[in-house]
Amino acid sequence: MKPDKKIFLSCDWGSSRFRLRLVDALEEKVLGEIESGEGIVATFTAWKKTGKAEPHRFAFYCSVIQKHIGLLEQKMGTKTTTPIIVSGMASSTLGMKELPYKATPFLITGDDLLIDETKPDDNFHFPLYQVSGIKTADDVMRGEETQILGCGLQGDEAKQIIILPGTHSKHAVVCGEKVVSFATFMTGELFRLLAQHSMLAQSVAAGTWDDIRHQKTFAKGVTDSASMNLLQSSFRVRINDLFHRLSKEENYFYLSGLVIGTELQSLDRSLSHLLVADKSLSLLYTKALQVMKFLNWKHIDANDCLLKGHLKIYRRIVDGGAKD
Amino acid sequence: MKPDKKIFLSCDWGSSRFRLRLVDALEEKVLGEIESGEGIVATFTAWKKTGKAEPHRFAFYCSVIQKHIGLLEQKMGTKTTTPIIVSGMASSTLGMKELPYKATPFLITGDDLLIDETKPDDNFHFPLYQVSGIKTADDVMRGEETQILGCGLQGDEAKQIIILPGTHSKHAVVCGEKVVSFATFMTGELFRLLAQHSMLAQSVAAGTWDDIRHQKTFAKGVTDSASMNLLQSSFRVRINDLFHRLSKEENYFYLSGLVIGTELQSLDRSLSHLLVADKSLSLLYTKALQVMKFLNWKHIDANDCLLKGHLKIYRRIVDGGAKD
Repeated sequence: MKPDKKIFLSCDWGSSRFRLRLVDALEEKVLGEIESGEGIVATFTAWKKTGKAEPHRFAFYCSVIQKHIGLLEQKMGTKTTTPIIVSGMASSTLGMKELPYKATPFLITGDDLLIDETKPDDNFHFPLYQVSGIKTADDVMRGEETQILGCGLQGDEAKQIIILPGTHSKHAVVCGEKVVSFATFMTGELFRLLAQHSMLAQSVAAGTWDDIRHQKTFAKGVTDSASMNLLQSSFRVRINDLFHRLSKEENYFYLSGLVIGTELQSLDRSLSHLLVADKSLSLLYTKALQVMKFLNWKHIDANDCLLKGHLKIYRRIVDGGAKD
Repeated sequence: MKPDKKIFLSCDWGSSRFRLRLVDALEEKVLGEIESGEGIVATFTAWKKTGKAEPHRFAFYCSVIQKHIGLLEQKMGTKTTTPIIVSGMASSTLGMKELPYKATPFLITGDDLLIDETKPDDNFHFPLYQVSGIKTADDVMRGEETQILGCGLQGDEAKQIIILPGTHSKHAVVCGEKVVSFATFMTGELFRLLAQHSMLAQSVAAGTWDDIRHQKTFAKGVTDSASMNLLQSSFRVRINDLFHRLSKEENYFYLSGLVIGTELQSLDRSLSHLLVADKSLSLLYTKALQVMKFLNWKHIDANDCLLKGHLKIYRRIVDGGAKD
């Protein structure tokens, strides 16, 4: 099968997840998708175990991609030799090839992102394009820049904040056609540490969002985050359990509300906000923004932004810089 | 040897440490001391492993005390059959005998603390007095109340805050002769979680306080804690490492400064403060209070407060309520 310029592989290689999608660029449609737990951290660990010398690292990571392409081809019953775009942690110190960060500001068109090309060879038959991360004087991101490109901003909007929740949430400030700065919040990681590894672990148990009582205690956590810092408020989780005020499941969402509320307390309310989140996180962040009485905000799907971000990058690098 | 009313055993049984001291109440002097890692958590785990029925629990914990008394006697070359006062987590759900919390306010004389007496029997030859913890509507403490009794407050001071740093730091508000309220901060535990179990673990390494560079980065952490919440500021630890701004040892103290600074941001600066800390924590908290330009505060040794607190309790329960 000859390379088809209208089809490409979109790879989002995060710390803990690997996701590969075959995309029809004309239709802006995902043709097939495969996902696994072989994120960058697991892959780096596997690479270290081989004991091989550093020059072999890139090929090792390519073999992981190759394996997933094989699985995707098998799933779809077709063969492919398209370009592949890789964003996320693949460009980090733990990744396949470390790339320097591009400094802010960067354009929401994606035209000034640093993209590293590796031409196909006998071992790996796909032209590979790695997207580098972004830095400010005090912060870094790898992967979220691609989602930001796909947010559908037109470049003429007033200053606003894009909220990208996750293990390490990002708040990016966009002004006109540029992302001018951003900040990281260790929200997801701290929640996990507190819920699983602190003395609070015995006071919480995962529950389902559908339960209205869980939503209520989540809202209470968001509200309480405004009046206490997290060192103090988190001990309330223990008290809720000790004083039999909340069930362990309710308490889990109370803790979630405290942590997410603490993150969102940092936002500048005079600006408008764009929440870029997948389904489960959007439920939580949407509720938090409502509880905190934010008025000027919208939500878009993170998955969709990732696709559109990769489409922008694809058009730039493969079609020679054409804009959408 | 006959019981000597002027001598008693002072036992501070915390979550992770067990400490036993033989005290001369007239001289207010520690005659001998023994310490071990058999705290309440380890003891509870050992108790669970025995598989014995609940009614045997108290005797099991007594056997742990008995063992330590034996070691202390051996060390001192003497025998003793004095009363023993036990404060700390021994009265918790994980302890030897759970006692209800006394509700705030409580008197700094110790006269209204709940003290539970167990008379000596054939198995345990020592009259045993357990001190119960304290609760407010939203918080609990077990152990710190004893230290507060020993702070040397006269009961006629203006409203002030006693800062008791630790795994779970307490800020207790004293007014006149009463402790009226307090709050808990998960400072020590969160520092440990971040330094050992988060992605920041690879960016920090324990160092010594004596190094002036470590003190400097600690101070920077305290300062930065004023302008960012902990979810954001803690990611700076990663950045300091990534951008080669600080050594891992400096970064360890930077993180410590962030966490302790965040705790102390909650203080009401219009009040005076009394820091009750052991040597290592007093170095950190003293520096933090200086950096934050607190003016109206004093420091006293936590170990000394514990001794004086137990002396107050001893006089009340053994000498029939005599005050010092």
